[in-house]
Parts: sequence; structure tokens; C-alpha cells
Amino acid sequence: MPSSLRKLPFLLIAVTLFPALLLAQSTPPTHPLDGLKTQEYWTVYDVLHASGKMEPETSVHSVLLHEPAKDKVLAWKIGEPIPREAEVILLHKGVTIEALVDVANHKLESWKERMDVHAPLIEAEFHEMGEALKKDPQVIEALKKRGYTDLTAIVCFGEPFGYFASPELEGHRIFFGECVDGHGVYTGWSRTIEGLLFEIDETDKKILKVIDDGPIPVTHAPVNYQDLETEAFPGTTPIGVSQPLGPSFHIKGGEVTWQNWRFRFRLDPRLGPIINQAGILDGEHFRSVLYEGSISELYVPYMDPADGWSTRVFIDAGEFYPIGGVLKPLSPEVDCPSNAVYFGNLINDDKGIPVMKSRQACLFESYSGEPAWRHFEDGEESGSAARVLVLRTAAVIGNYDYIIDWRFERDGNLRVAVGATGIIETKSVKAKSATESGGHPMSGAPDEFGHFVAENTIGVNHDHFFSFRLDVDVDGVNNSFMAMRLVKRQLDNPMRKSIWVAEPSIAKTEKDAMMDIHLDRPAMWHFINPNVKGPLGYVTGYELMPGTTAASLLDPDDGPQKVGAFSTHQLWVTPYKQDERFAAGVYPLESKGDDGLAVWTKANRPIENTDIVAWYTLGFHHVPRAEDWPVMPTMWHDFVLRPFDFFPRNPILTLPPAP
Amino acid sequence: MPSSLRKLPFLLIAVTLFPALLLAQSTPPTHPLDGLKTQEYWTVYDVLHASGKMEPETSVHSVLLHEPAKDKVLAWKIGEPIPREAEVILLHKGVTIEALVDVANHKLESWKERMDVHAPLIEAEFHEMGEALKKDPQVIEALKKRGYTDLTAIVCFGEPFGYFASPELEGHRIFFGECVDGHGVYTGWSRTIEGLLFEIDETDKKILKVIDDGPIPVTHAPVNYQDLETEAFPGTTPIGVSQPLGPSFHIKGGEVTWQNWRFRFRLDPRLGPIINQAGILDGEHFRSVLYEGSISELYVPYMDPADGWSTRVFIDAGEFYPIGGVLKPLSPEVDCPSNAVYFGNLINDDKGIPVMKSRQACLFESYSGEPAWRHFEDGEESGSAARVLVLRTAAVIGNYDYIIDWRFERDGNLRVAVGATGIIETKSVKAKSATESGGHPMSGAPDEFGHFVAENTIGVNHDHFFSFRLDVDVDGVNNSFMAMRLVKRQLDNPMRKSIWVAEPSIAKTEKDAMMDIHLDRPAMWHFINPNVKGPLGYVTGYELMPGTTAASLLDPDDGPQKVGAFSTHQLWVTPYKQDERFAAGVYPLESKGDDGLAVWTKANRPIENTDIVAWYTLGFHHVPRAEDWPVMPTMWHDFVLRPFDFFPRNPILTLPPAP
Repeated sequence: MPSSLRKLPFLLIAVTLFPALLLAQSTPPTHPLDGLKTQEYWTVYDVLHASGKMEPETSVHSVLLHEPAKDKVLAWKIGEPIPREAEVILLHKGVTIEALVDVANHKLESWKERMDVHAPLIEAEFHEMGEALKKDPQVIEALKKRGYTDLTAIVCFGEPFGYFASPELEGHRIFFGECVDGHGVYTGWSRTIEGLLFEIDETDKKILKVIDDGPIPVTHAPVNYQDLETEAFPGTTPIGVSQPLGPSFHIKGGEVTWQNWRFRFRLDPRLGPIINQAGILDGEHFRSVLYEGSISELYVPYMDPADGWSTRVFIDAGEFYPIGGVLKPLSPEVDCPSNAVYFGNLINDDKGIPVMKSRQACLFESYSGEPAWRHFEDGEESGSAARVLVLRTAAVIGNYDYIIDWRFERDGNLRVAVGATGIIETKSVKAKSATESGGHPMSGAPDEFGHFVAENTIGVNHDHFFSFRLDVDVDGVNNSFMAMRLVKRQLDNPMRKSIWVAEPSIAKTEKDAMMDIHLDRPAMWHFINPNVKGPLGYVTGYELMPGTTAASLLDPDDGPQKVGAFSTHQLWVTPYKQDERFAAGVYPLESKGDDGLAVWTKANRPIENTDIVAWYTLGFHHVPRAEDWPVMPTMWHDFVLRPFDFFPRNPILTLPPAP
Repeated sequence: MPSSLRKLPFLLIAVTLFPALLLAQSTPPTHPLDGLKTQEYWTVYDVLHASGKMEPETSVHSVLLHEPAKDKVLAWKIGEPIPREAEVILLHKGVTIEALVDVANHKLESWKERMDVHAPLIEAEFHEMGEALKKDPQVIEALKKRGYTDLTAIVCFGEPFGYFASPELEGHRIFFGECVDGHGVYTGWSRTIEGLLFEIDETDKKILKVIDDGPIPVTHAPVNYQDLETEAFPGTTPIGVSQPLGPSFHIKGGEVTWQNWRFRFRLDPRLGPIINQAGILDGEHFRSVLYEGSISELYVPYMDPADGWSTRVFIDAGEFYPIGGVLKPLSPEVDCPSNAVYFGNLINDDKGIPVMKSRQACLFESYSGEPAWRHFEDGEESGSAARVLVLRTAAVIGNYDYIIDWRFERDGNLRVAVGATGIIETKSVKAKSATESGGHPMSGAPDEFGHFVAENTIGVNHDHFFSFRLDVDVDGVNNSFMAMRLVKRQLDNPMRKSIWVAEPSIAKTEKDAMMDIHLDRPAMWHFINPNVKGPLGYVTGYELMPGTTAASLLDPDDGPQKVGAFSTHQLWVTPYKQDERFAAGVYPLESKGDDGLAVWTKANRPIENTDIVAWYTLGFHHVPRAEDWPVMPTMWHDFVLRPFDFFPRNPILTLPPAP
């Protein structure tokens, strides 16, 4: 029974005594893009149960706000009825069901059985077959061969196939299972029993295969990072942020105003933070920049051909719906500074019942002592210190912690940063170290596909790719994408042979806008409003400036790459479609890659002077190092949306020197 | 008379009254890599004057510490005599002179006339021909044609040729001259009188050519950024850094210790901050990482073929020796936070007399509320907040302000960041705006080679390239460079077609180590000590992780590109040579590109298991935008040196949660 249900009796008593509490929990939505509220989750629950379609085995795999079409949101005004729908994914005896609930009108709008897709995995499924595995004679025998007779501390579970790895997956929920040896430790990371794998049919509740590649002792590399004696370096003095009069942002009806920015955000159980209707307050006038921005998908393929590793490819946002959602709590004064304000969030459990999770996001003003601009002239220094508003969350998907920052800067920049930390995935090997094996990866070495991070412990090579969906609306809905290519030009000049010139071209269709980064063929990526001109005659625009990133090296027709095909290009641009939100499709679990960015864009649709959406791929390759063990120092990657001819001049020049 | 000399009478009085003051000014050096001290500048002055070689026309163009050979520095111990030499560049009637002064022994070691090179330009030369220009009948006529009869507010000056642009430069210091219309403004930026150019022979003090391409009215775009009414956004609350017990770094004998870092720095008049002997305090044991790190050169080519613009190519560190050096003062609480400590610096004037400049660098601990690492597991959050030590300077070269940060992180990362701000170079054009001209750059448009940033004002396209010289000494002097290439491998696996593997290769010679960034052929750049292994059997190392950067698009045999040839590759590795310090050579002014990185590496010298130096090119292309006017918001670029198997495990895991 989920812990949330156990709380209900208390709640009922409390309500009797304090009716205001129920009222507080029933806060109605104030805007069409608000996250689902307590009473709305319950409406979804009640509507589904009243439909007569729910059975005891039906599990609720995801309940998400179904965003109204953009034109409806933009036309909506305070005081008008708020359109509210929820999209629900359910699973009944292996069959995925899509339901749409009209929350505002307490109505089941649709109920569709989908034989061709797989609902995202929920945590219960991980463990469901665990106990069964431990009772299987073949598994018992295999564990015995490895010296495990007391199975109390052995934890077995299934992990998803992030792509259609084999024809036997057709129509079934197949997981690859493995066991962890928890004896002597309090956390199971690094303790996987390598060489012992299972294929589990979660649909038919059957163990399909036990693959025993022979015993490999489980590493004893200490993964402890919590129970350590900590000590500051000698002489460390306290340091902090001082903001005695409190923050200078304001939140009303879910709308954040801060300095020259205004935006909304909600915390989506699948995608994490979703920014909406972000724009600039230009005096009295609000100028839109980004209708919506969020992560759209993650793709984390591992690079080891061994059984159980070759298929280890995570499509983290869409294939798995963890308890409490993708976001996990932030730790005050560790993850956010002391001047941060925290936000809780509601999410459903596997019955569809809402659970409140605290500290899922923090919002704070950051001052790091950098100049926002400066100049020295004739002995005089001028300038102004920078201040930034940061909306921070941490998405934790098992081992990895991804800190996701949306940073609003007063010069109009909107910087998105991802900090990767947490625990790397490791495998135990017989070789103790690279000394024993000859050092540095080479064919046949135990570290051919990774790197020793501790004795008998290989951190396995892998990639991280994030697709960011950025529904840009620069000064309005209709935008175009303009690639400004810097092209060498030969000169007929005795003093100078060559320069480069900027050659703009408007992308007419999606294929024109598939952009790859090449240092020898640079291009600037501009999102412009062809219908709005600034005082200098240029269309207003925002530039997407990539940070360091990576492209996938895998075969385009490799199973995982078909699902994570968004990693093929660093930028894609599509026309806005209400249902195109997930770069690897709605159902990436066991996907054949038949949905998502690479599929939609095959139509090569027109994208000129229309409502367009940018998809930026932020990626990095990861060869682990000793310093990444047992927890990685945070590594940041970012990209920036920056105004380009959006303002008539530098917008921060009239700010005082103090931040 | 330089303002420093005017201070002398006061000083003499003060000395009589307070002998301690003179003592204070005569602080002796404590280490061979200290910057030159007051008394040492005077020793250089006295030795040069005592030699009988100085004449009234001889100007001092640069006085720099001549670093002892590295083996001598490493062998030197406290208490031993400190080797001190100064390298001086002088100019006498157009002839460049190189002098080497043994400061410790008050001796002129060498005096060489160099007919083949040009001493860097000094500020006096800029203006020397200005008054002459204003008296030239042709110039008077050209100015009159433009309506200028009162020349009081007209300022004319010469600008350097950053490369050998034409055969007539041979043996002469030739500048291209222009005039600025200062009427009605207090600063001359953007007020250049376009279409009127001069070629000036500074050697023979002659005006060679007056080029009149016809009048173009000077723009009236407001460049004012100082005399503005500033106002914070409504509701802005104060924010600051709080470090009530003061900083936790210590400086003794020029050596900074902070947390697990130790390093020295000096402020070089030509190169700005130079970091020395930086390394990690691993318990009692000091482990070297970087013997020396600094900017080595800058290369800023403009991209406009017009007269006076095609040759506008700045090699900022080497071609120009500004009054007060390349660094300019930092403004407290604008450029650095309130907990910063500031450092002054001595530099010579054009007589060789030392001048004290204040607030040339700041050092502070930065806390921005980010986790250094974190993990969420089983309902528990763990982590530690980050704290960083920042050494900041601002190099101001005319219009541009480059903030240069060396950021020391406790996980062993050393991050180098360059923030570009200041004023863009603009030209006046007849067209008022892009509306008038048809919008967006195209052939023949007034903004073909730039972008309107204000009415009648084009921000001209250009590049910025920085060469960072990084004398890596990971765990000792002898290192190797290892490129770890990530290479696709096809698999014979029914479930997975492809992975990538990491293929290390040690660069044997300089050509093996010329690295270019390609997303489809990624490589990690490791500097390893092949003689020191960590507990896991790997050699210890540091990885250089590039940030976003750019490669030059110019023809390799184009004049400017021959001088700025370091921009051809993103990484170079050379064997350590005491005299190879400047990536574009010692004398880039009017250079034919016959010195510097691209020339030295033609020898393709061995670089394996020897003392090596890495040269990283940080670059970016710049198409100005309206928001860059009249002062640019700071744009940051960075790269990181990070430990890779240098520590046996994550070195920050035993730090407490608080920063």
C-alpha cells in the first residue's frame, strides 16, 4: 500500500476538525497551464472509477496535465472558465490504455486500448518479479554457484528495454533482470551480480531466460558517501548569501515577475520543470519570448557489448515513471543557497492518488560578483554587477542526479544549464586494476568499454543526450528560423586575401533547419519574428547559442539510436503541434523508433513564418575517471537563448552599479 | 612628463619624514617568479643609463621579468640568492633594441639592435603624429571638405598594422591613421571620420598617403554609457556576499594557499595574470599541476574589406604596450564582490620608470549556491555546496574589456574564463538603418560586413582568439599528451549494432598533438605523467576540456592569419623552451608570421615523456547586435583543466555540506 494512502485516515480526522485544511488542499487552478491540483487528481480518480472500466489489476502509470491547444491558452482570460484535461496512461494485464479526462467537466472523454505501445514502467514493476526470481530453481542454482544461499539481502529486479531490442519483445513487456548483493552494504550501487541475467516477461509474469555467463565476484569497492567523517580544510571561514530584505521576485497566480522578466512554471511528473509564457516586460508592454520550454527527453546509451549491457539504453523521461515523479527534493543550503524559496509538487501514485512532495524546486536570486557589463575609459571605470534569477530542480533517475537550471538574466538572456552528478553505473570485473590488466583501454582488456574507478570496478562508458523543447514565440506566435552562416570570402585586395561574411537564410522546411555544429562551417541560429521590426529595420529575434555538446556516434539504424534519433542533430525546428511534445515519442519503452522528432520531420513540413518549436540537443560523452567515484563532482553544460535585435540597445545600461 | 614623475617631489619629502615608506616601496623579491619590484625597475633604469647607450630619443617600450629557466626555478630554495633578470625592449630612431639586464647583479648582459622586428607600439606613438596630421595641408583640405574647420576637437592618431600588410612596411614603423570628431561628445568611440585614412611613417615621421574615399557623415548614435540616469527595477532588494570572518585564503611570500590548492601569481604588463607553480596539497604532499599558465596572445581580425578596415587586425598582447600595462583597475562591488581582496601592480612608463597601478587584480571566494556534488537515494539527500577561489583581472585594450578569471575549484578543476564586454568597433555609414538598406546582410548592402547597432552605425564583424599557454607539470615536469579518441565500433550482436570505444594514443611529436574539434570525431585531451601511476594502475593526469570555441575561417596564407596562425588549431603541444612564450611571436607588430607557435612546431619536435607546454585556443566569432550597443553585456567563454585519475577518488566527498 503506498504510503500516501496510509496518510488518509489522519487527513479525514483533520478535515473534520479543520475544514480549512481541505480547502487549502483543494486550491483551484488559476491558469490553464497550472499543474494538476489535489482535487483535480481526485476528479480524475473518481471519473475513471465511475466509468466502470477500472479493474483491480489496472495500474495508473501516469497522470499528466493535458495542455490545451496553444491558441486556447493565449485567448484565455482571467475570470473565464479554465479548460482542464488530464491525460492518463494505464496498464491492464499488459495492455496499455490511454484515457483523456475532462477534469473541468468531470467527464471521461476517451479510453483507448493501445496494442502497439508500452506504458512507461513504474517502480512497482521493477520489484514485482523480484521475489518470483528468487524462487526460480534456475536462479537459486545460479546464485548458489556464486556462494549465495541466504537470499535475504539479494535484491532482484527488472530493467526496461529502452528500444525494440529483439523480435520477442513484440506485444510483451519484457525486462532484463539482474540481482544485487546487498550483504555488508546499505546501498546496492556497484553491487550488481555480473554475468547473471534474466529475461522477464512482465506481461505474462514469466521468467523467459536465465543467462549465466559464469561467476564474477561482486566488487567490494566502497560506495559509501553518506557515512563519512567530513572535515573542512583548515581555516575555512563561513560564506553565504545575504539578502536581508528578502527576494525581489513576486509570484501571483503562478506567475513569476522578476526585474524585466515574467514567466510561469509547473513541475511536470514526466518532464520536470516546464517554463511557460516567458517574456520581457518592456515598460508596460509584455513581449513574449518562449511560450514553453522544458526537457523533452533523455537518451543514455551505454557502450559495452556484454549481455545486459548492450541493451542498457535509458530513455529516462518517457520509459520510466518513478514514484514521486522524475524530480527529487532539493537540500537547503547544499543544492540551493540560503535565500532560496522552495516549491512542493503533487504527483499521482500507481492508483492515481495524489501525493505531495516537498522541495521539488527552488527559486532564488544569484549574485556571484560578476560584472553584467563594464568598461574602462580615460581613467574611469563603469559597469554594473550581475544578478540572475535561478529556477532549479534536480531530476534523479536512479543513479544519476541532473540539476536543471533555468537562469533568467536581466540582459534578456535565458540560460539553461544541466549539472550532472550522482553515481555512475559500474560493473564488477575479475581484474583488480589496470596494473593487472596492462593499463588503458585496448582490445580485450577488462577496461575496454570503460575505466577502472575502484578495485574490480569499471565505470562503463556512456553518453548523455537531452532534448530541450523550446516553443519560441519571439514577439508573437509566428516566427521563422534563420541560419546565419559565416562563410569565407576571397578578397581582391593587395593587403588582405580573405574575410568571412554572415549569410542569412530562412529555413523554409524542417530539413533546412536540421543543424549540426562544425567549427569550420559556423552558423548562428536565430529565431526571428518576420512580422516585427526593431527601430534599425531588423526583425526582432532571439539567438540560440549552443554550449559544448556532442553528437551520437552510433549507427543511425541501430535500435537505440532509432529511439534516441534526436541526438543526430544539435538543432531541429518543427511547426507547433499540440501532440508533439516528446522527442523520442510518447512511448519510448521497447520503441521501434516510430514516433518522435526524427519521424515527424520526415514530412519536411513548412516552418516559415508560422508557429515553430526549436529542439536543442545537449549531449556529452562520458568516460568515467577515478574522481567520479563513488559520487561524481557536478559537471555543468549549458546553452543560452539571447536577444538579437530584440531590444533596441543594451537593456541593462540604465541599471545602477549595485546588483 | 608622465604623472608618475610629478609625484616624485612628494615622495622625497615623505621619505625624509618617513623612511619606512621608502623601505616599503623597496620590498625585495621573495621568489624568482615575482613581478619586478620598485627598486628593480630603478636598477634596470640605472643600469641602462649607466651603459651610455641611452639617448634622449630612446624610448622604453617594455620592461618584463625575464623568467629564469624552469630547472633553475624548481631547484631554487628559500634563502638562496634569487636570480633576477629583466628583458627590455627599446626603440631608438625606429630601430628596435633588445636589452637584457641582470638585476640581481646590476649588469647589462646584452644590448642587441634588431633590424628585422618592431618594438610594440606605445601610447605616445599613437598621438605623436596626430598634431602633424592636423597641420598637413592635404588633411586640412580633406577635413574642410567634410565641414571641419575648427580642428580643436578633431583627434588624429595612428593605429598599428598587426601584420606585414604591404612591402612598403619593410624596415619602417608604418601606422594607418584616422581622425575622430570629438565635437559634442566626451568620448570618441563611434566618432571616427570614415573614408579618410592616412599612412604614416612613424620611423621617418612622415605622412605617406592621404586616402580620401569621400565624405561619410559621422554617426550621432549616442555612445554615452556613463552619464545615464540609472534606476533599479521596482522592488529590487539588496543582495550581497557575507563572509564575516574574512577570506580563508592565505598569501605569504607571493604564494596563495586555499583549501587544497597552492599557487603563485604575478601581473605581467604584457600578458596580464600569470599563474605559477599551481598544484594540489594532497595532505602534506604538494603535487604540481601547472608550472605556468597565462594568456599568450590575442588575435582580433576584422572582416571588412574597406580601406583602413581590411588591415584592422589586432594582436593585442604583443603589438601594443599600453600605459599601465594591459590590465586596468577593477571596480569594487561591480567587477568583484564585497569579499574580494585587491592587488596593485608596478609597470614601467616609456622612460622605464615604475608606476604603481591599483586594483589590477582581485581574489575572492565565490559561493553561488550550487552543489559541488549531490545524490538522492532511498529518501535521503546528500551533497556539499561548492566554493570557488577566483583570481580576476580585466584586460582593457582600447574598446574591449576582457575579464580574465582563473577559478580554482576544490574538486581539482582549474577553470579559465574570459568575459568579453566593453565597446564594439563601429563605422559610420550613409544609410540610416537596415530598413533603408533592405535589411539583413547581402552583397552591396551597407551592413554586408557587420550589423547596424544604431542609426548610421555598423558594428563590424570580427573574431576573438586567445592563445592560452599552459605549462602543464602533472605530478612532475615530464608529461605526455594523450589523445583519447572515441571511435565507433560495429558489433556482431543481434541486439545492438554499434558502440563507441575510447582509443588512447600518445602524441610522439608536435604534429600528433595539433587538435581540432569535430563533433563526429570526438577526442579527450589528456596530459599525463607516464612515470607516476595511481592505485588503479593508470598514469596520473589532467584533462583539458574545451568550452565553446571557434576556428579561424581565414586563408592560411593571408597576412593576418600567418601572424594569428595559432587560431588554426584548438590545441597545440610543444616541448618546453624558455623563450617560447608568445604564440604569435615576440614582435607581432607588422610581423610576417615568422615567429610563434605555427613556426616552432614546423620542426615537429618530440613531445613524449618530456617537459611539455599546451596551447589552447579560445575563440569566438562576433556579429554585433543592437544589444551590444553602446556597451556589450558580458559574454563568457571558458575551458577547464580537470583531474583525470589524478586523485584516487572524488576528492571533495569528505567536505561538509556547508560551503
